[in-house]
Amino acid sequence: MIQSVAFIGLGAMGYRMAAHLPKHFEQVLVWNRNFAKAKQHAAMYGTQAVSLQDAVQADVIFSCLPTSADVEQLLADLQLKSGSIWVDCTSGVPESAKKLAQQLKKDGVYFLDAPVSGQTIGAEKGTLTVMIGGDAAAFQKALPAIQAFGGLIKHVGESGAGFAVKAVNNMLMAVNLCAVAEGFTTLKAHGVELSEALDCINASSGKSMVTETIFPQRVLTREFPVTFALPLLAKDTGIALDLAREAKLATPVLATARNMIQAANASSDNVVDFSSAVKMYESWSKITLE
Amino acid sequence: MIQSVAFIGLGAMGYRMAAHLPKHFEQVLVWNRNFAKAKQHAAMYGTQAVSLQDAVQADVIFSCLPTSADVEQLLADLQLKSGSIWVDCTSGVPESAKKLAQQLKKDGVYFLDAPVSGQTIGAEKGTLTVMIGGDAAAFQKALPAIQAFGGLIKHVGESGAGFAVKAVNNMLMAVNLCAVAEGFTTLKAHGVELSEALDCINASSGKSMVTETIFPQRVLTREFPVTFALPLLAKDTGIALDLAREAKLATPVLATARNMIQAANASSDNVVDFSSAVKMYESWSKITLE
Amino acid sequence: MIQSVAFIGLGAMGYRMAAHLPKHFEQVLVWNRNFAKAKQHAAMYGTQAVSLQDAVQADVIFSCLPTSADVEQLLADLQLKSGSIWVDCTSGVPESAKKLAQQLKKDGVYFLDAPVSGQTIGAEKGTLTVMIGGDAAAFQKALPAIQAFGGLIKHVGESGAGFAVKAVNNMLMAVNLCAVAEGFTTLKAHGVELSEALDCINASSGKSMVTETIFPQRVLTREFPVTFALPLLAKDTGIALDLAREAKLATPVLATARNMIQAANASSDNVVDFSSAVKMYESWSKITLE
Amino acid sequence: MIQSVAFIGLGAMGYRMAAHLPKHFEQVLVWNRNFAKAKQHAAMYGTQAVSLQDAVQADVIFSCLPTSADVEQLLADLQLKSGSIWVDCTSGVPESAKKLAQQLKKDGVYFLDAPVSGQTIGAEKGTLTVMIGGDAAAFQKALPAIQAFGGLIKHVGESGAGFAVKAVNNMLMAVNLCAVAEGFTTLKAHGVELSEALDCINASSGKSMVTETIFPQRVLTREFPVTFALPLLAKDTGIALDLAREAKLATPVLATARNMIQAANASSDNVVDFSSAVKMYESWSKITLE
Repeated sequence: MIQSVAFIGLGAMGYRMAAHLPKHFEQVLVWNRNFAKAKQHAAMYGTQAVSLQDAVQADVIFSCLPTSADVEQLLADLQLKSGSIWVDCTSGVPESAKKLAQQLKKDGVYFLDAPVSGQTIGAEKGTLTVMIGGDAAAFQKALPAIQAFGGLIKHVGESGAGFAVKAVNNMLMAVNLCAVAEGFTTLKAHGVELSEALDCINASSGKSMVTETIFPQRVLTREFPVTFALPLLAKDTGIALDLAREAKLATPVLATARNMIQAANASSDNVVDFSSAVKMYESWSKITLE
Repeated sequence: MIQSVAFIGLGAMGYRMAAHLPKHFEQVLVWNRNFAKAKQHAAMYGTQAVSLQDAVQADVIFSCLPTSADVEQLLADLQLKSGSIWVDCTSGVPESAKKLAQQLKKDGVYFLDAPVSGQTIGAEKGTLTVMIGGDAAAFQKALPAIQAFGGLIKHVGESGAGFAVKAVNNMLMAVNLCAVAEGFTTLKAHGVELSEALDCINASSGKSMVTETIFPQRVLTREFPVTFALPLLAKDTGIALDLAREAKLATPVLATARNMIQAANASSDNVVDFSSAVKMYESWSKITLE
Repeated sequence: MIQSVAFIGLGAMGYRMAAHLPKHFEQVLVWNRNFAKAKQHAAMYGTQAVSLQDAVQADVIFSCLPTSADVEQLLADLQLKSGSIWVDCTSGVPESAKKLAQQLKKDGVYFLDAPVSGQTIGAEKGTLTVMIGGDAAAFQKALPAIQAFGGLIKHVGESGAGFAVKAVNNMLMAVNLCAVAEGFTTLKAHGVELSEALDCINASSGKSMVTETIFPQRVLTREFPVTFALPLLAKDTGIALDLAREAKLATPVLATARNMIQAANASSDNVVDFSSAVKMYESWSKITLE
Repeated sequence: MIQSVAFIGLGAMGYRMAAHLPKHFEQVLVWNRNFAKAKQHAAMYGTQAVSLQDAVQADVIFSCLPTSADVEQLLADLQLKSGSIWVDCTSGVPESAKKLAQQLKKDGVYFLDAPVSGQTIGAEKGTLTVMIGGDAAAFQKALPAIQAFGGLIKHVGESGAGFAVKAVNNMLMAVNLCAVAEGFTTLKAHGVELSEALDCINASSGKSMVTETIFPQRVLTREFPVTFALPLLAKDTGIALDLAREAKLATPVLATARNMIQAANASSDNVVDFSSAVKMYESWSKITLE
């Protein structure tokens, strides 16, 4: 039985995810590097803003940080409670998950890699998709806490498997982002009405999340709202390619898309939305996707 | 007012599409190179199997053939009726549509490129997506006939625009087919459970028609049912790339995927389903996607 | 026996190529759209500046124009002499060579596609490489005239074969241009001294004309002298890819390089040297190749 | 002054490289895992076959092993002499060179990464190209020993720079291997005579080491002599791509070629020559490059 839960990292996602925990657990501890945010969360949702060392004494500890390197750095100095479960919702590196799981196991602590998808809206509604790698029994034990913010929750394999699925998911999205940008500049160059073409494709075999929501909501509107920064997508495509590299697999389409995201990222400043990658194609073609 | 309609080419798609016409029109003429099929259609659906020259005297003539070259060859010897509208549902070449439209216009005949998507099941239910290029007034005039088998029906631009949208749609599907094969051999190499991963991705930003239906229904089941032959997909990706070439655009992701489809096609016999393209990746990785 | 030769198109290459002809033939006719240049050539080298219609009455007619389309347009209005041989030194389209060869044959005229390589310096010295497609007997007959400016002269196959070899040659150069730019920005990012690296590679298996002359002379010097415009290289890579397309071959590396050249070309103005394509990689990496 | 030199790893390259040392140094120690080979070398060239621990007491120690992992493993258990210089001629990993250099420095030992190119023939003649990263003073000190087997010897930068240049060199060769295979299947599909085409390209801008020696000597002859195994080339392309990855650079042409080498390698058994990679293209095109 889970007596206490903690949430480390109250960014755009974590802040909303942690907000669901008090509905299900009496003791919910929160910590954030910028601690004012933790206190704000406590005031707003009835959680307790505590020191990092106190937070990690909970039965289940969630983390949601920018990268696996941040998680590793955090964990380096912490003393955890035997029997506790660390659920890392970062979009992290499979290799790091394996290493941390092995390392924490020595102290009787389980590490689950549990990245989420569904964006801030899914975090707010508590309907996130959670893809989880690691010990199956620990997964079962932590499940009630994960359900607080999760909709579809899947145990996809051993340590690292959760991060791997997330990286491949984002890679597939990146592939579509590039491919649709390439296809739609081509169509516009031939005088095709893009929104009509989009309707057709969304009723056909070429549809994807990119054609269904990203292009109509972010690109064709020219809004490019910054909800997921392009450098983070570049990072995720790198993780996916590393997985292919380790397995010695040939993945030419993923590799080409990854390189285009890299090029688009190198041509942009750091705070643009991932969807801005299409602007590289626009600059090449002198065509605006609208 | 449309008095008579004709349907030329009773293949897997055409046969089912033409079957809806008698519900809306009194005179429905059908023709097929293998004429026995036309007579069978007539017996089954109350259409009239007639000679090609008679068929093309209808007010609206549909064609549904393997390639634009077949349509061009057919039209070369025909005398059409002024004021009639030729609606070509072939997955054809935009350049050919422009040429035929210009050519037929001299005889007062309109040519609409009107490829469909939705497969045989959509043809059977009359819910096909139809993407149409050509004269807007002719489109309006032919619309009632197209509605017999169409669900979403869109006028997407001038002559060739319909074929262009279809080619790009199929190209996007091909990109996903390759990308998902690359991503899923990678995941399996790392011990990830594929069907669980698929569930996660289908609730996330990486989803596409390929992850939603093609992989679970055709690949993971190992069925690869032949409904759309790989050489035809290879042809369509070639059409899409030609459009990019003509517009002098850089489309590296589409080009790489097109080359992989080409390689997969070159490694297969001609009668395999398009989804069999993943087998090239399986042979590279010694991993079976199941 | 060749009594008279003509040279059509006195650009940077043609002007120098035609200059060798008077050493070997008594009657050398020249023509150029900007006719002042023809008169200048005549004054300088003892050729005769004549009307186009007069020029094409020679036994052997050379042409050297920007594209096959220019050659086709020129030939459309000309009446040629039966038994003459048209030697087209344009970097042209194989399909066009086949068409022109077939067309001219009706008038008893042979068409050889005979593109050259070796740049203006090779034209000046009369040491150009000439790769020739077309009728073998016509090749033998025209050979003495070709030898006026050619060093290595090879009959490589039927009509179109010469253009094909030239297109593939330029495609291979484009591949190296991109690959070396990618490799050298990578090396510089890791603090490697580029000129030392170049020396090593030029003594090793990675060497190419790009590492031996183009990078040291044009890129690392930051001179980018305009001797072969980037749009022409983009055109040639398109010709090479079309050959692959027609043969239904998978050429992923060529296709990717072609797309990068296309992107670089789209990002540049029209009068830059082909070597400027590396600047796209420089802008991506914020690294200057010097 | 160098009093003694050692050579660790007497494979096809090392055996020949070490043979030059007795001409310049009195004490030449050799060691090989299969020790019989060391004794054979001693008998043949007047070197001394000694234990590994004895060998590494030399002033300059050369190593030439399959991978950096082998070198790291070897060094893990060794006690080196302060002031000595380790010259690693393996085609290794830059990151590993940096790590080893830093690690050995603590014991007053210098580590130079010094991969070679020129194949067994260059090793035999003592004309290898040696590209060296690491401390400049140590390089100067070791130079007389390196000159025993080196022709062109270049200090290209800090630790890792030598391995980086070698990896990029081999990557460029791999790019040409793929590109020429793609280009030449295309030419042959169009009826072009390959050896004539090769002559033309070797006199033109598309030439490379691949067109000058690898294709005529290994591929067109159908000999594919096993001098450098395909898995090793696959490894080297991976090293090159990792360098790009670390520097966050977009290298689409290198990435595509690397994936093709990976695919070709996955389709081959382990003991084929790198030039056999072209057979993947042959199987796709049903064209034999001869």
